[in-house]
Amino acid sequence: MKNNLILPFALSAFALPNFAQSPSQPNIIVFLVDDMGWQDTSVPFHSSRTPLNDVYETPNMKRLASQGMRFTNAYACSVSSPSRVSLLTGMNAARHRVSNWTLRKNISTDRACDVLDFPKWNVNGITQFAEIENTRQVTPLPQILKNNGYHTIHCGKAHFGAINTPGENPYHLGYDVNIAGHAGGGIASYLGEENFGNKTNGTQSPPQAVPGLEKYWGKDIFATEALTLEAIQALEKASLYNQPFFLYMAHYAIHIPINKDKRFYQKYIDKGLHPKEAAYAALIEGMDKSLGDIMDWLEAKQIQDNTIILFLSDNGGFATDAKWRGGELYTQNAPLKSGKGSVYEGGIRIPMIVKYPGITTSDAVCDVPVIIEDLFPAILEMACVDKYKTIQETDGVSFVPLLNATGKQKNEKRNLIWNYPNLWDGTGLGVGPACTIRKGDWKLIYHYETGIKELYNLKNDIGENNNLIDSESKTAKKLSAELSNYLRKVKAQRPAYKATGKQVPWPDGKE
Amino acid sequence: MKNNLILPFALSAFALPNFAQSPSQPNIIVFLVDDMGWQDTSVPFHSSRTPLNDVYETPNMKRLASQGMRFTNAYACSVSSPSRVSLLTGMNAARHRVSNWTLRKNISTDRACDVLDFPKWNVNGITQFAEIENTRQVTPLPQILKNNGYHTIHCGKAHFGAINTPGENPYHLGYDVNIAGHAGGGIASYLGEENFGNKTNGTQSPPQAVPGLEKYWGKDIFATEALTLEAIQALEKASLYNQPFFLYMAHYAIHIPINKDKRFYQKYIDKGLHPKEAAYAALIEGMDKSLGDIMDWLEAKQIQDNTIILFLSDNGGFATDAKWRGGELYTQNAPLKSGKGSVYEGGIRIPMIVKYPGITTSDAVCDVPVIIEDLFPAILEMACVDKYKTIQETDGVSFVPLLNATGKQKNEKRNLIWNYPNLWDGTGLGVGPACTIRKGDWKLIYHYETGIKELYNLKNDIGENNNLIDSESKTAKKLSAELSNYLRKVKAQRPAYKATGKQVPWPDGKE
Repeated sequence: MKNNLILPFALSAFALPNFAQSPSQPNIIVFLVDDMGWQDTSVPFHSSRTPLNDVYETPNMKRLASQGMRFTNAYACSVSSPSRVSLLTGMNAARHRVSNWTLRKNISTDRACDVLDFPKWNVNGITQFAEIENTRQVTPLPQILKNNGYHTIHCGKAHFGAINTPGENPYHLGYDVNIAGHAGGGIASYLGEENFGNKTNGTQSPPQAVPGLEKYWGKDIFATEALTLEAIQALEKASLYNQPFFLYMAHYAIHIPINKDKRFYQKYIDKGLHPKEAAYAALIEGMDKSLGDIMDWLEAKQIQDNTIILFLSDNGGFATDAKWRGGELYTQNAPLKSGKGSVYEGGIRIPMIVKYPGITTSDAVCDVPVIIEDLFPAILEMACVDKYKTIQETDGVSFVPLLNATGKQKNEKRNLIWNYPNLWDGTGLGVGPACTIRKGDWKLIYHYETGIKELYNLKNDIGENNNLIDSESKTAKKLSAELSNYLRKVKAQRPAYKATGKQVPWPDGKE
Repeated sequence: MKNNLILPFALSAFALPNFAQSPSQPNIIVFLVDDMGWQDTSVPFHSSRTPLNDVYETPNMKRLASQGMRFTNAYACSVSSPSRVSLLTGMNAARHRVSNWTLRKNISTDRACDVLDFPKWNVNGITQFAEIENTRQVTPLPQILKNNGYHTIHCGKAHFGAINTPGENPYHLGYDVNIAGHAGGGIASYLGEENFGNKTNGTQSPPQAVPGLEKYWGKDIFATEALTLEAIQALEKASLYNQPFFLYMAHYAIHIPINKDKRFYQKYIDKGLHPKEAAYAALIEGMDKSLGDIMDWLEAKQIQDNTIILFLSDNGGFATDAKWRGGELYTQNAPLKSGKGSVYEGGIRIPMIVKYPGITTSDAVCDVPVIIEDLFPAILEMACVDKYKTIQETDGVSFVPLLNATGKQKNEKRNLIWNYPNLWDGTGLGVGPACTIRKGDWKLIYHYETGIKELYNLKNDIGENNNLIDSESKTAKKLSAELSNYLRKVKAQRPAYKATGKQVPWPDGKE
């Protein structure tokens, strides 16, 4: 009776959602870890096990990998906001121009440079409806999912827009539920005892003080656990609604500060790890437990076979600061070079596992390069959303065709592109304004400040130790041209010389 | 540069919002008071001042009325949820079938009746995307406003959907911000000292314990004030976004429990009021202060001339229970008869004031009957949203043409309809399953249980003391037919006789 009344209008209506989700629409979980390196796990992503795989204990990632497909050549941007925006919009960072991490309205987080001026990038992040300066207006993934029948849950770190702009609030981006997400891209403290960084003595809380977890203040609980409890509570609620759910579970872990997660810390000390590294390992294992708790919940609800899980990190592991890490710097993602903020593999290659029940087979591996913006079309394909329009033009390519065990895709030879016309606030190996292209096994890096190029063959030299820029000049020229053409096409930004005010040339030497 | 990239896609896209709100899009505030009677104010809505106008002190309503138009014949449903759903959807309650107040999933709040069985109404309220049994699927007003550039804020009482259905959560209905709104339609306590009814000792909180005001727990603050502070904080945030705002300020006041608002209580005791009535008057004045605080904020921001305010109640004043009210029952809305839950004017006639800067003139009065669902098209017209589609068919008629001082409208002779095939949990004069029509000055009531009809000429007999059903049989017949035809047309519901299982006839005696 109700439907008799409703359907005639629904069918004729424009700008309306699909009301009845298809019974085949699966639940979808993006489990996004912050700053997790390619080797910060006991699951091997390299061609063979590495020493780091034996340091870290991530049994639930192993469990997930045993049910799905590991992507060994998965990429993100070298810092947070660009990756998260690419995921939510399907755009490459060169196009969306949220190219560095965001925090305060109209204030760039670029470190000052003697030689270069940096362009006016979208320091305010993304927005859906409002027109705000230095902000990219987009149709975000959760909004499309919501319009197509999904109950959309955001849990954890958002980092999509600057303070006091609409994008600071996940509710503006299509989320029905927001747990603890805001403009901040880090966490002031993981400790409930420290109110997750919120001040209660009348002084100003830091911008990384995490909101929305007030009920855990003063308690002996780690933020990773609190977020997991809240996410599961939101899932419990979601299970009462007659909708598939989309859970964007974006842990603040394993971003600095590397607070000790007491549940796991001592174990790693007993293993002989440096205290900083033991704390880091514990932070990882706490994150892994969260994954396990959510998988347990799915199994208890018997919906594990109708729930897709996409596990990934937003950039490489932190490896450029002795304050936070033990051991020799730039080796913490070994065999990859350097880490977060760097143009080298340590900064951009990420662990990624996809479980698509009925599609992925057990312990599958895919070596085809994929990149963070590919999640956008892939998730929409998984959600059976084939008709949608976006404000933005997108770059991502769905990796769903790769998931059915054969691991082959038509566009295996596509170019992956990075553009970072910025200067990170951290320093270290490979940190600096640069643009990069990966084509097949080749990777070309162009440093905006010096004009220096580097060329590596990743198949033979994953550690990027052997620069072939001189010996492989033909390849370098070809890659320089393709990279430049793409950047010009999407109207990418680049720095300018302070001395002359002139923009730095593109990698092919042209304007 | 940014817009050059965005606009081509925006213009060609389907299912997309209007990105750039027109500079002429005003801010809009719906200031909705709960259970406020037509006479619960010092602002006269009757043809002359009444004794009650001298009891209550509402200087800010007076201030608003001096800048806008009072509607003396404004109506809502006799209880909360139907009114709120009509406001959000533009549908008459006969059509949306959320005909009684909602609370628990799949559980009717109808009181049992010896004679009648009540129909399976939409006890779960409304929903936007999910298909849920006993729920009306709609395109809600805030979603349309949001899609057309508004930043949408919900503050206070929601009461749109049952617990554990999507409609319980204002975020599912197009709101960007939700302060303290949930499935509950009342407030367990107005007192911060009592945590607004939330239990902290491990026992279950009542369903009317208000969420989202945790930071005021244990403090000496009245809920009306806490909501106002939160609303102004949300408006402060909204003022930073480059969007017009829609604030749905839905006070829990002046619904029972009639806790003493200490800020105003003693004044009314000193005036000689019965303690219950003094508490009620204080509850009203606290609400009025909230209106004034918001008006002050608009003036401080110098946006009062670009902000429309619509002040109204959701049903008549509470007048059927000696536990809560002093004086003789059913007279608390005098000269109107009875109160909330009743089919008489005391149950359905509401105070309503509209300030539309540049349109309404000072201290204007409009006697044309309007009804709660008229807010839907009126607000969309005010928001300059002329192209929108809704899942639901709507009934409301915009009252914007009435606002420009002449007070005339084409369809002045339209029928206003009420259908309440339910039994309220309160008892009293005029409380019972009935349908009603107002046409011009005439009002016909049809009682489903007894088949009895009443006919009043409201122009001469606003107190509904002189039943003309026998002497004006021609008018009664005409109104019965028009009421029945409308109810049949919209597939309205009606009770059935317990004895036979047969549905009660429509007012015209037909099936």
